Amino acid sequence: TRARDRGISVGQMEVGATNSICDIKGVSVGSITLSDGAIQTGVTAIHVVDDNIFEHKCVAAGHVINGFGKSAGLLQLDELGQLETPIVLTNTLSVGTASDALVRYMLDRNPAIGETTGSVNPLVLECNDGAYLNDIRGLHVKAGDVETALTSAQDSCPQGAIGAGTGMSCYGLKGGLGSASRKFRIGDQSYHLGALTLCNMGLLDDLLVDGRKVGREIAELKKHEAEQSAELGSIIMLLITDAPLSSRQLKRICRRAGAGLARTGTQFGSGSGDIVVGVSTANRIPHYSPESGHQDCQILHEDKLDILFRAAIESTEEAIINCLFASKTTTGKHERVRHSLADYWPKLDQPQA
Amino acid sequence: TRARDRGISVGQMEVGATNSICDIKGVSVGSITLSDGAIQTGVTAIHVVDDNIFEHKCVAAGHVINGFGKSAGLLQLDELGQLETPIVLTNTLSVGTASDALVRYMLDRNPAIGETTGSVNPLVLECNDGAYLNDIRGLHVKAGDVETALTSAQDSCPQGAIGAGTGMSCYGLKGGLGSASRKFRIGDQSYHLGALTLCNMGLLDDLLVDGRKVGREIAELKKHEAEQSAELGSIIMLLITDAPLSSRQLKRICRRAGAGLARTGTQFGSGSGDIVVGVSTANRIPHYSPESGHQDCQILHEDKLDILFRAAIESTEEAIINCLFASKTTTGKHERVRHSLADYWPKLDQPQA
Amino acid sequence: TRARDRGISVGQMEVGATNSICDIKGVSVGSITLSDGAIQTGVTAIHVVDDNIFEHKCVAAGHVINGFGKSAGLLQLDELGQLETPIVLTNTLSVGTASDALVRYMLDRNPAIGETTGSVNPLVLECNDGAYLNDIRGLHVKAGDVETALTSAQDSCPQGAIGAGTGMSCYGLKGGLGSASRKFRIGDQSYHLGALTLCNMGLLDDLLVDGRKVGREIAELKKHEAEQSAELGSIIMLLITDAPLSSRQLKRICRRAGAGLARTGTQFGSGSGDIVVGVSTANRIPHYSPESGHQDCQILHEDKLDILFRAAIESTEEAIINCLFASKTTTGKHERVRHSLADYWPKLDQPQA
Amino acid sequence: TRARDRGISVGQMEVGATNSICDIKGVSVGSITLSDGAIQTGVTAIHVVDDNIFEHKCVAAGHVINGFGKSAGLLQLDELGQLETPIVLTNTLSVGTASDALVRYMLDRNPAIGETTGSVNPLVLECNDGAYLNDIRGLHVKAGDVETALTSAQDSCPQGAIGAGTGMSCYGLKGGLGSASRKFRIGDQSYHLGALTLCNMGLLDDLLVDGRKVGREIAELKKHEAEQSAELGSIIMLLITDAPLSSRQLKRICRRAGAGLARTGTQFGSGSGDIVVGVSTANRIPHYSPESGHQDCQILHEDKLDILFRAAIESTEEAIINCLFASKTTTGKHERVRHSLADYWPKLDQPQA
Repeated sequence: TRARDRGISVGQMEVGATNSICDIKGVSVGSITLSDGAIQTGVTAIHVVDDNIFEHKCVAAGHVINGFGKSAGLLQLDELGQLETPIVLTNTLSVGTASDALVRYMLDRNPAIGETTGSVNPLVLECNDGAYLNDIRGLHVKAGDVETALTSAQDSCPQGAIGAGTGMSCYGLKGGLGSASRKFRIGDQSYHLGALTLCNMGLLDDLLVDGRKVGREIAELKKHEAEQSAELGSIIMLLITDAPLSSRQLKRICRRAGAGLARTGTQFGSGSGDIVVGVSTANRIPHYSPESGHQDCQILHEDKLDILFRAAIESTEEAIINCLFASKTTTGKHERVRHSLADYWPKLDQPQA
Repeated sequence: TRARDRGISVGQMEVGATNSICDIKGVSVGSITLSDGAIQTGVTAIHVVDDNIFEHKCVAAGHVINGFGKSAGLLQLDELGQLETPIVLTNTLSVGTASDALVRYMLDRNPAIGETTGSVNPLVLECNDGAYLNDIRGLHVKAGDVETALTSAQDSCPQGAIGAGTGMSCYGLKGGLGSASRKFRIGDQSYHLGALTLCNMGLLDDLLVDGRKVGREIAELKKHEAEQSAELGSIIMLLITDAPLSSRQLKRICRRAGAGLARTGTQFGSGSGDIVVGVSTANRIPHYSPESGHQDCQILHEDKLDILFRAAIESTEEAIINCLFASKTTTGKHERVRHSLADYWPKLDQPQA
Repeated sequence: TRARDRGISVGQMEVGATNSICDIKGVSVGSITLSDGAIQTGVTAIHVVDDNIFEHKCVAAGHVINGFGKSAGLLQLDELGQLETPIVLTNTLSVGTASDALVRYMLDRNPAIGETTGSVNPLVLECNDGAYLNDIRGLHVKAGDVETALTSAQDSCPQGAIGAGTGMSCYGLKGGLGSASRKFRIGDQSYHLGALTLCNMGLLDDLLVDGRKVGREIAELKKHEAEQSAELGSIIMLLITDAPLSSRQLKRICRRAGAGLARTGTQFGSGSGDIVVGVSTANRIPHYSPESGHQDCQILHEDKLDILFRAAIESTEEAIINCLFASKTTTGKHERVRHSLADYWPKLDQPQA
Repeated sequence: TRARDRGISVGQMEVGATNSICDIKGVSVGSITLSDGAIQTGVTAIHVVDDNIFEHKCVAAGHVINGFGKSAGLLQLDELGQLETPIVLTNTLSVGTASDALVRYMLDRNPAIGETTGSVNPLVLECNDGAYLNDIRGLHVKAGDVETALTSAQDSCPQGAIGAGTGMSCYGLKGGLGSASRKFRIGDQSYHLGALTLCNMGLLDDLLVDGRKVGREIAELKKHEAEQSAELGSIIMLLITDAPLSSRQLKRICRRAGAGLARTGTQFGSGSGDIVVGVSTANRIPHYSPESGHQDCQILHEDKLDILFRAAIESTEEAIINCLFASKTTTGKHERVRHSLADYWPKLDQPQA
């Protein structure tokens, strides 16, 4: 179930058909889930286009809310305003393995890399599932798992405690993957913007659900679990749109995702590496320069960005709430349990409609 | 009245004695209000210490949420992590006048500037009150007004539609100045962190008061006023603390202010220049190097910052709500009226205790 | 005289017809020089286009090498990647006066500002001429001087100790304004990139002229002047091109200007606020969004930027050397004298052909 | 041989005893060289202290001149101003493998990571040796190689075509590792600052050796080799000092390294990822907060930084020239040859004393 199934509708805008990043044409997502006792981790791969992104790159931008994180690939993404690989999500200590596997995946499909053209910039984003549920020291993600996630993508968006979200915790509850989207018009064009969030942040007491102090209500019910005293988590927020934007404009949009995050209640703890990546699937950029050296593009006028800001904020907030409802109760290392919001929800006083 | 007088208490932390930036020892604030028909503007000056800040500078940091603004002085503040003047707030088109007046104020009090030592970096922050109430094209703020604000400071914090807040609008209501503070302990030391906000952002429909969708409720009541269709405002958020911090740590704290802002509902519109400045009054930095070339300082361990993050978020959110309650209904240019939240509040269905 | 008249030709690229920023069509420059005893300062105004830049803005970018400076307007320039006013150069403590005067100039020509549209972002850049020659505490630049510089612009570029350069010092010699340009082809298009530098940095011993340690040679000759012990100056580097670029690409180009600066020998002293601003006159951006909300543009492929990087580096280095040759010996406050490189040059051992 | 053996002495400052980063107490360096036909690559590991850096971290800062690079770990280094692992240098496509191996190295030595404390941020920096000499697609660096480099460190600094420098090219000549250092006093304290550069950038024509246009001279001699038409390389510049600094101050120092680089002639090509990392070994930061939550530190007054700026610039320039002299002629994939500057030097007209 999603937030909307519970009568919770964040914001004012129209929602996309699937209410997920898969509303943006060409997007597909693959996951592998490693869930076995103390092993609670996995990999999720997002293809933002359905052709060779290295040959025709996407406009992209990153925004770092809190750089206490180990994501790889943001440096070049920021310099060039381009994404040239699928995006891989996994746990913090598996970034190296995932980067290496993503490089191999790209080399296999692009014989020119490292031979007649330059190298490739793998984008791997992470959260730390080792703080509670996963035996992260075991380094259980293998190259083959990353390959599996990359090659098994489908055009529907997994949500909940699967893939990279398998072992995540969020507001003292079970975290994982969540998604949501918004639809809007600019001039006579219709566009979508969607958010995919890998949620591993927050303390229970702080949780807000569409403004309601649900965290404190659950804390009243829930006295039995060991509590984190500090935010050691992180959140990755991925925004994808088919609206035509420059990387500077996308970065402005990415900066708004934090407002959606803030409305779920987090205090942006020091140890929580909060990262946003934005991608536009319009205005693809050829790897090789055309003979003329010039390329035409179309972008939105700056005055038209407000609706995208709103879409980013609403989608991010709703994706996080969707994650909480979708993530099922999970037992991990040291027999630790993270309960699902879905389990607590019916017990709350007068749950909203 | 303040939010707490209405039964609204944001967050969990203990509040300072005055619940304002004046809880930080040494802080004083002066204002001049220019309110006469189409002239609805003014100046507010904040002294963060009670001695010569040029001779003993304060650790400082800035954070730009949205750089669609004309504030002056942030460049050097960021490079050196230092504040060396009082802070002046005014309207957008008066930044030049205020910078010049602040330079003159500093020259008068520091004969070495420009003669035997370098120059001085005036910090002037602004919001655009010309979008609705003030005849900003008239450039009504004069050098003498800035001098008056600077020299009339007292150790209590003005709130509402006064000083730089005179002509501001916020969430389609009357905006202005607001403040709040939090008190906390680290080890055996007690510290304060306070926020002063100059509020000129937001659309009515988006207003949240401690999670409640008050904006939509008021919109139901309020059908008579011309509405802005886009956010053309801005907000300045000033955070002051007596906790000992490096400028890097202060910048991390500044980045959290946006979460407090987000919880009041804004969509961070493209035209809203949202700026945060943080100042610590601990660890003063001498203008002239000691003979040894070294200086001792004490800073917090990074693991102790979470409480300051929370204080920044809570103080910012509450300062904005305080501003809305404190800012009285005002008529300005073209007979335009901005109504006070205080006027609408009693008419709302079942206002919170 | 210019460097090339002395047989010094920096770099490998072709030079523009005037070897100055005026090789870019539409650029014009106006100056006012205040030179009278202890008053050695002035204002220079650069119009990058010959029509209303507020109505049709230019793509722009800034880069801060060292933020120990008081320039105003960079915040919004960076956020929006746009320039919407002429550029004014003056001394450090006159930035407020110049900002105010530039605002007034813009209000006069754009009745919508502050009334039916938002505000305006004046760009004012500065160096500190008060460290040696100018009575900067006297605040001798008046609003009328700024207006004069703005309204007297012509399509030839002043160089030497005039306008904003009147009281500047550079490598212990007379500094001021310098310019240079490069011409290049991309595909079947021909473009120019020019640099204008306001030079007020460096210690004599460090000066390099096209690799030659000229500073040390002059130091041997020159034993009579009081020497600065630290860099308290600054340099403003303005790059203008007619090549079509995004603001992200322009920022990459701006980052290279520092390499040209470095080759003149400076050690980038702590007190030297070194700022680069880049502007492209292609792809003008309308203030008001077209009905469609979209705009078409053409930009260079990233692989074609290297020639612009080289042009930026070569132009910046040559502009600084041109400045040194063009700036005449000047006497200022306290009867202090700055000698021209042109005076020393003939005395140097075997000057290069 | 080093530059000084050839009579080339860059700058004015005193040189450290070993003229390398090993002048900073505690620094050690280990390398593994993979040189066999088409395999021309390797790994270099730098330990900046001789005890457990995870338990007592170092103040650190990064600076990105050109982000067209794939280095990992800079995000957190920047956020926290801390380094908590040894630094590993390798080729671009082996960053993932090296990150994973460095994580394993850290887990082995720190049982708390991922169990009772958070995770760890491996710092891996890279250049692309695949553009000319190395079969980079072969991914020849293995986890064991990284372990070997990490565990074989000694307190002398390898220079030339070894370790990570094995397959690098620089100014169309053989590149690799280079180092240099400077010694200076502040108050009554003596300090060192050293640079280690991994050099893989530049076009032959552009090479400057202490201002002399050596590149063009060699180009006259050298007509036989296939030339790169664009900079596809990169340079990593590592600055280490024992002077006490904040991370903000270190970042200012890092920004100056580009001036040393510029003086060797590079045009900072679009494809050249130029990265600086600075580390201070003073003011170690405990991983676990002391009970008090506070820590004392001592930093330099800002006015004392100029000598460190100069040391950074001089060391960087000299390290690059040292690299060129130390790197021996190497044959790699496709029988391509990179010649050493040392081979050409004797053939140049009137080499400097």
